[in-house]
Amino acid sequence: MTDLSRFSINQMTVKQLSLPELADACAQLGVGRVGLWREPVRQYGVAETAKLIREAGLSVTTLCRGGFLTATDPAERSRALDDNRRAIEEAATLGTDTLVLVCGGLPPGSKDLRAARERIADALAELAPHAEDHGVRLAVEPLHPMYAADRCVVSTLAQALDLAERFPAHQVGVTVDTYHVWWDDQAPAQIARAGAAGRIHTFQLADWITPLPEGVLNGRGQIGDGAIDMRAWRGHVEAAGYTGPIEVELFNEELWARDGREVLAQTAERFVEHVLKKS
Amino acid sequence: MTDLSRFSINQMTVKQLSLPELADACAQLGVGRVGLWREPVRQYGVAETAKLIREAGLSVTTLCRGGFLTATDPAERSRALDDNRRAIEEAATLGTDTLVLVCGGLPPGSKDLRAARERIADALAELAPHAEDHGVRLAVEPLHPMYAADRCVVSTLAQALDLAERFPAHQVGVTVDTYHVWWDDQAPAQIARAGAAGRIHTFQLADWITPLPEGVLNGRGQIGDGAIDMRAWRGHVEAAGYTGPIEVELFNEELWARDGREVLAQTAERFVEHVLKKS
Repeated sequence: MTDLSRFSINQMTVKQLSLPELADACAQLGVGRVGLWREPVRQYGVAETAKLIREAGLSVTTLCRGGFLTATDPAERSRALDDNRRAIEEAATLGTDTLVLVCGGLPPGSKDLRAARERIADALAELAPHAEDHGVRLAVEPLHPMYAADRCVVSTLAQALDLAERFPAHQVGVTVDTYHVWWDDQAPAQIARAGAAGRIHTFQLADWITPLPEGVLNGRGQIGDGAIDMRAWRGHVEAAGYTGPIEVELFNEELWARDGREVLAQTAERFVEHVLKKS
Repeated sequence: MTDLSRFSINQMTVKQLSLPELADACAQLGVGRVGLWREPVRQYGVAETAKLIREAGLSVTTLCRGGFLTATDPAERSRALDDNRRAIEEAATLGTDTLVLVCGGLPPGSKDLRAARERIADALAELAPHAEDHGVRLAVEPLHPMYAADRCVVSTLAQALDLAERFPAHQVGVTVDTYHVWWDDQAPAQIARAGAAGRIHTFQLADWITPLPEGVLNGRGQIGDGAIDMRAWRGHVEAAGYTGPIEVELFNEELWARDGREVLAQTAERFVEHVLKKS
C-alpha cells in the first residue's frame, strides 16, 4: 500500500461528493484526513459533520475559511468579525486546530492596499484571543497577486508573516499553498522564516495550469498537470521543519464534472507520484 | 490646453487605428508621443512607419516588444536571438531608444523558473552589445505573476533588476508598468533602486479591473476605472528621478470595439484627470 498518512483531501476538490459520500470514499481509499469548507458543513450541520467525521475515523486538517476582514463600513466589519468568531467555534467543534483565513480585497472604490492590510491586523487582534480560547490557530493565506483587488490584499508570504508576527505563533500563522506562491522567488526564504517560528499552520497543494478561466477562480490544476515542482515545495516546507498534513485543494470545473470518487482516487495517486516519490 | 507633453499613447491601446490614422488622431489631439508594436509596424513597413512618424512630428517612446528568450531548444533559441537583433534594428530605424522585452515563459514540460531566468541573462549578454551599437536600451519588463508560466518568468521588479544589473544601465534597464507591479509592496523600493541606477527605461500605465477575462490578456482597464492609484505610482517613479514619457498601454476588447479616435481622446482625458492632476 502507498503511504497516504500525510495526504489530506480538501473537500472542495471533490465538492460533488456529499459529506457522507466523502467519508465513505476516504474509508475505501485509506485516506484519513480531510480539509472542510464552512458552507457544505453548515448545510449538513456542524455538530452532525463532527459526528460523521469522528465516526468515520477521519481527522480534519483545516476549516476553510474565515477572513474577509477589510471592510471600512462599521456594520459590515462587525458582521465579518462575528462571522469569524463563529468560524472559530465551528473549527473547534469539528476538531481541527486550524482555520484558514482569506483576508479580503479592496472595499468598493478604494485603491489603498496598505490600509486594507492594516484593517486585517486590527481584526486579527480581536479574533486571535477568541481563537486561542477555542484551541484554534488562524492561518493567514496569501493569495496569488491576481486576487489582490477583489479577494485578498495579502499577496505574498512575506506580507502574511508581517501580519502573523504581530501575534504569538499559536494564535496566528500562515497557509502555504503552492498555487499562490509558486512564482515567488522569495517564498522559499519566507517558508524558512515561517517554519523557524512555528507558523506554517497548513501546507496546501494545487498545480498551475493555463489558460486561466474567466474570473480566474476555478482553474487550479490537478497535481502534476501544471508548472509547479511539487517535490521542490514539499522540500522547502520540510527543510523549514514542517512535518504535518499536506492538503490538496483544487477548484476546477472539469474535476467537478467527473465522478467524485474517481477524482479522489486520482488525486491520491498524483500525490504519491508527484509529491511523495523521489524524482 | 492641457499638458500632454509627457503622455504617450501605446499603439495597442487603439489598435483599431491604422498607423496613418493614429498619426492623424495624435496630431488632432496634440499628442506628440507614441509607443509602437512590431507586428503592425512590420505590416506597414518599418522604414515607411519611420517616415510617417517623422513627418507627423511624433516621437516614438518605445518599441514593443522583443524577448521570449527562455527556449531550451538550440534552434528555437537561435531564432529568438535573431528576432531580437532585428527588433533592436527596427527600434533604431523608428528612432526610439527603448526596446521593451517580454522575456518568455517556461518551455513545454519545464517547471524550473530559475533556470529559465538564467537563460534570459545569457541571452541579454548576447543582445546588449548589439543594442548599444544601435543606440537602443533593453527594458526588461516584469509581468504580473499570473503570466509566470506561459509568458514571462520575470514577475517582479526585483527580479528584473537582478537581471538588468549584470549589464551597464545604458544597455539594460526595466519597464515599470502599473498593471504588473501595483500589488507588490516591494515595488516602490525597487523603483527607487532602479531610478538611482538610471534603469527606469520606460513607465507604462494600465488599470486593474475585475473580473479578469479568460486567458487574462485583454482585460486591462482604462486609467481610472480600476484599483490602481496612478498618482501614487507616478509619485514613486518621479521620486526615483524619472521625468520621461508616461505611456498608456491598454489591452481591452471593449476599448478595441469602440471608435479608436474616441478612445484616444478618452485616454488623454483620463491621463490628465488621474495621473497629472493633484487629488
